[in-house]
Amino acid sequence: MAEYKSDIEIARAASKMPILEIGAKLGIPSEDLLPYGHDKAKVSADFIRSVQGRPNGKLVLVTAINPTPAGEGKTTTTVGLGDGLNRIGKKAAVCIREASLGPNFGMKGGAAGGGMAQVVPMEDMNLHFTGDFHAITAAHNLLSAMIDNHIYWGNELGIDTRRVAWRRVMDMNDRALREIVCSLGGVANGFPRQGGFDITVASEVMAILCLATDLKDLEKRLGDIIVGYRRDKSPVYCRDIKADGAMTVLLKDAMQPNLVQTLENNPAFVHGGPFANIAHGCNSVAATTTALKIADYVVTEAGFGADLGAEKFFNIKCRKAGLKPAAVVIVATVRAMKMNGGVNKEDLGKENVDAVNRGCANLGRHIENVKQFGVPAVVAINHFTTDTEVEIQAMKDFVASQGSEAVLCKHWANGSAGIEDLAEKVVKIAESGSAQFSPLYPDEMKLFDKINTIVQRIYRGSEAIADKSVRDQLHAWEAAGYGHLPVCMAKTQYSFSTDPNLRGAPTGHAVPVREVRLSAGAGFIVAICGEIMTMPGLPRTPSSEKIRLNDEGFIEGLF
Amino acid sequence: MAEYKSDIEIARAASKMPILEIGAKLGIPSEDLLPYGHDKAKVSADFIRSVQGRPNGKLVLVTAINPTPAGEGKTTTTVGLGDGLNRIGKKAAVCIREASLGPNFGMKGGAAGGGMAQVVPMEDMNLHFTGDFHAITAAHNLLSAMIDNHIYWGNELGIDTRRVAWRRVMDMNDRALREIVCSLGGVANGFPRQGGFDITVASEVMAILCLATDLKDLEKRLGDIIVGYRRDKSPVYCRDIKADGAMTVLLKDAMQPNLVQTLENNPAFVHGGPFANIAHGCNSVAATTTALKIADYVVTEAGFGADLGAEKFFNIKCRKAGLKPAAVVIVATVRAMKMNGGVNKEDLGKENVDAVNRGCANLGRHIENVKQFGVPAVVAINHFTTDTEVEIQAMKDFVASQGSEAVLCKHWANGSAGIEDLAEKVVKIAESGSAQFSPLYPDEMKLFDKINTIVQRIYRGSEAIADKSVRDQLHAWEAAGYGHLPVCMAKTQYSFSTDPNLRGAPTGHAVPVREVRLSAGAGFIVAICGEIMTMPGLPRTPSSEKIRLNDEGFIEGLF
Repeated sequence: MAEYKSDIEIARAASKMPILEIGAKLGIPSEDLLPYGHDKAKVSADFIRSVQGRPNGKLVLVTAINPTPAGEGKTTTTVGLGDGLNRIGKKAAVCIREASLGPNFGMKGGAAGGGMAQVVPMEDMNLHFTGDFHAITAAHNLLSAMIDNHIYWGNELGIDTRRVAWRRVMDMNDRALREIVCSLGGVANGFPRQGGFDITVASEVMAILCLATDLKDLEKRLGDIIVGYRRDKSPVYCRDIKADGAMTVLLKDAMQPNLVQTLENNPAFVHGGPFANIAHGCNSVAATTTALKIADYVVTEAGFGADLGAEKFFNIKCRKAGLKPAAVVIVATVRAMKMNGGVNKEDLGKENVDAVNRGCANLGRHIENVKQFGVPAVVAINHFTTDTEVEIQAMKDFVASQGSEAVLCKHWANGSAGIEDLAEKVVKIAESGSAQFSPLYPDEMKLFDKINTIVQRIYRGSEAIADKSVRDQLHAWEAAGYGHLPVCMAKTQYSFSTDPNLRGAPTGHAVPVREVRLSAGAGFIVAICGEIMTMPGLPRTPSSEKIRLNDEGFIEGLF
Repeated sequence: MAEYKSDIEIARAASKMPILEIGAKLGIPSEDLLPYGHDKAKVSADFIRSVQGRPNGKLVLVTAINPTPAGEGKTTTTVGLGDGLNRIGKKAAVCIREASLGPNFGMKGGAAGGGMAQVVPMEDMNLHFTGDFHAITAAHNLLSAMIDNHIYWGNELGIDTRRVAWRRVMDMNDRALREIVCSLGGVANGFPRQGGFDITVASEVMAILCLATDLKDLEKRLGDIIVGYRRDKSPVYCRDIKADGAMTVLLKDAMQPNLVQTLENNPAFVHGGPFANIAHGCNSVAATTTALKIADYVVTEAGFGADLGAEKFFNIKCRKAGLKPAAVVIVATVRAMKMNGGVNKEDLGKENVDAVNRGCANLGRHIENVKQFGVPAVVAINHFTTDTEVEIQAMKDFVASQGSEAVLCKHWANGSAGIEDLAEKVVKIAESGSAQFSPLYPDEMKLFDKINTIVQRIYRGSEAIADKSVRDQLHAWEAAGYGHLPVCMAKTQYSFSTDPNLRGAPTGHAVPVREVRLSAGAGFIVAICGEIMTMPGLPRTPSSEKIRLNDEGFIEGLF
């Protein structure tokens, strides 16, 4: 077997082009690129405004089967497909999410693709990057400080201190901050109350930044945030606290999409990174819509498997931003099929066509689901060295039996040269005009019916079940004018059901909705079906213990 | 009276040069400037290493009388003098501190000089700038998370949870976070304990970054931080927690000094910003020493009045970094003399020569003090429109009687043209070679004697007084090998005494030392003489309520 270089070795050896030249490929003038170092830049709001009149390029979503420990390579395929489309002569750009800083200090990081299909500079992208998440943290916590300050100075708005809904955030895995009592220490420090911190990517400000169309829309949405309730349960808004203007100022630069490049010097927008459970898990609308104005093809991805990621991409992001995807790529691997077919991780190296066949049920379900949105799907088999010809053929046969096509992709090993077939297939689909996108449910459907629609049509469960208190809350929000919002499902990503161990394609399961939350600024109702962790902890031996600069000044231990 | 433009109007109208051209003035090649937008850049560590063999330029400290509500204009004079030196043909650079984000949302901000003597881009400098403070916040809080994580997973180091000395930080004025109980909520969240947040500028990481000579030194100092104590009171270090490597990685970019420009397109380094009470209140050693290698003159400033700022600049920064200042400028105003002479703020517009004469006692004391360090001082009278000829002459006469010289400066109104005389005078002093800098006390002096030396020779108090527990603590640190450290005094900036209302030049007052703290990483002992606030709060009507983007996209309310 050939000796492989690690992702970080490949990334460091990359021959990067100056970011101004990458921008030039998309016709962005140098004065509209605000550089951050020589290899990162933000695209100016002025430029974005100037291209609004142009027609859109074609939007391709890369999604996947339910994630398994074997790893599917969704980002890697997104990046590879971007390079592949450029290789066959299309002006293509990639749109992916920014990485969260905190989790890198727990487990080894790296959220920029892999092998020969990566986005660079990888190290910066896993550290501070262009500071967007720090800006979101600051904006979020300014609101928090202003809420407690309002209470301290007399609480004119009558906020019930037991019902402050706005927590604080930090981009760090810090379980000690999950639940705190703040404002201790006497009169000068305010009124003691329970509070806590979430990780920054779980902030509603993150979701808002990723859904806002421009700074005006951003400010409006920030103002709409519900920060808490009065004793009569009436909501208090961020606008009442008068924090929306200053938060917008703090987010002014963060709203501008970041431009970097792939290993093959093709443009990649890396912008925003909301949680894929309590938020919608897609990169920013600002980046996607801008890329569509200046590239012929835009390849983007959504968090987790298609049951969560693609569903939210369609029902939340596309609905809200008026996007019309032209094609969907579902990433799957032979190894993941085998795991879905009951094989243990240790035995994945052995050929097992039966297991592949069994596991394909999961893939088939996702193909069906995507088609429900009116968008044609193609399957990318992300090649792994242990895959055998027969296993690959079994997957191809299965996908063909579903009326779709599976294409073997070797972008991890070979970059764009390994993914030309998929690129050609995607272009064929996109240019056929066969996509007729529409969301799964209309705005005017009742909130609980929206949840039930997703449970029955996507998860293939028997029904959504919820306590009266949950259903009453949904009715109350409908009465308050929030009934038109889409639903953001927070469920395990490992199964169509709420049991993470139930792989394959289960049916008939009930899906309990334990809690609902209103993200009035982001513009969705979160339906929580299971444990949702909004502030991770560090493991016993966090990777931060090994992260350091070596004698050559290179970072060790981060990847 | 002429109509004056506001600082922000002047700053916005500035005709900025591309930052690469500013760097070129100091011989920094473009590849060694990492741009942040078109008007900010970091100077690469490689370049800094490459110039270490060069001789140093001349270092000029700008300090001031005790601050009064009338405002003295120390940063304005620092910037003006830098421009003035360039005007008279010297290659000069300015070195000032970065502004803290949090306080800008409380009161109107602006820490980049004023009038025609400003550093730009002013708005960025008062917001996220190049992200240094966010990096410090992240590095600090990573250590915090790793401490609680260590305790959570079994506490192998035996940290006494009642004696965790390392708090958390946020760059925000948030009194609700001063005192908290964290790790609530049950087994999964750890062991409940008391904790709290300081503002980021109060972090020992900030002081360390500002005193470190390079990344190796930074990592070593971070490792030296004492994070808490065991039940037997033995210290636990950051190094024991294994956080020093990852913190260094987080601070890698932040260690590189930031280059911006004055309104007159002269180079200005803006880097670091430690508190001037519990830390030493100077910009970074990295920026100052780099500037000295590439400029003939470097003008820098220190926090508060000369009794605190200059004393720490000399005894901590110059001692540790081996700096030898060539001249000191003490900034004073006619208005501040009048306030020191007993005039109320409302009456400052009226001529009152007697009050000027009375108030000059404060100025005289600072002139004497600076001379004790062996550095010649010149006084800059920062001109204000209501000053009269007779008042100015009174100040000049007084300063002459002290064996020094006072120079009238009109840089606020006229930029470099208004400060040529001071620039000439500074050059004359610096080139005379008359400066013979030495710190006030030797390393080997006992810790309490160091405190007493400052109290008696700088504050002109009778003596430092402290409880036995404080003196025992100092002896314990001497026994533990920390006796060689300098002392960082935390005292009110408004008076030579510990009574902020006692203006002028008091003598004979006792100075009570209430508490001492060891900043083992930064390398000083903090002696706390009075109330020290390490997390500010917001006022009743914070300026953040007014901060917003207007319809032209300009920030309103921040200045």
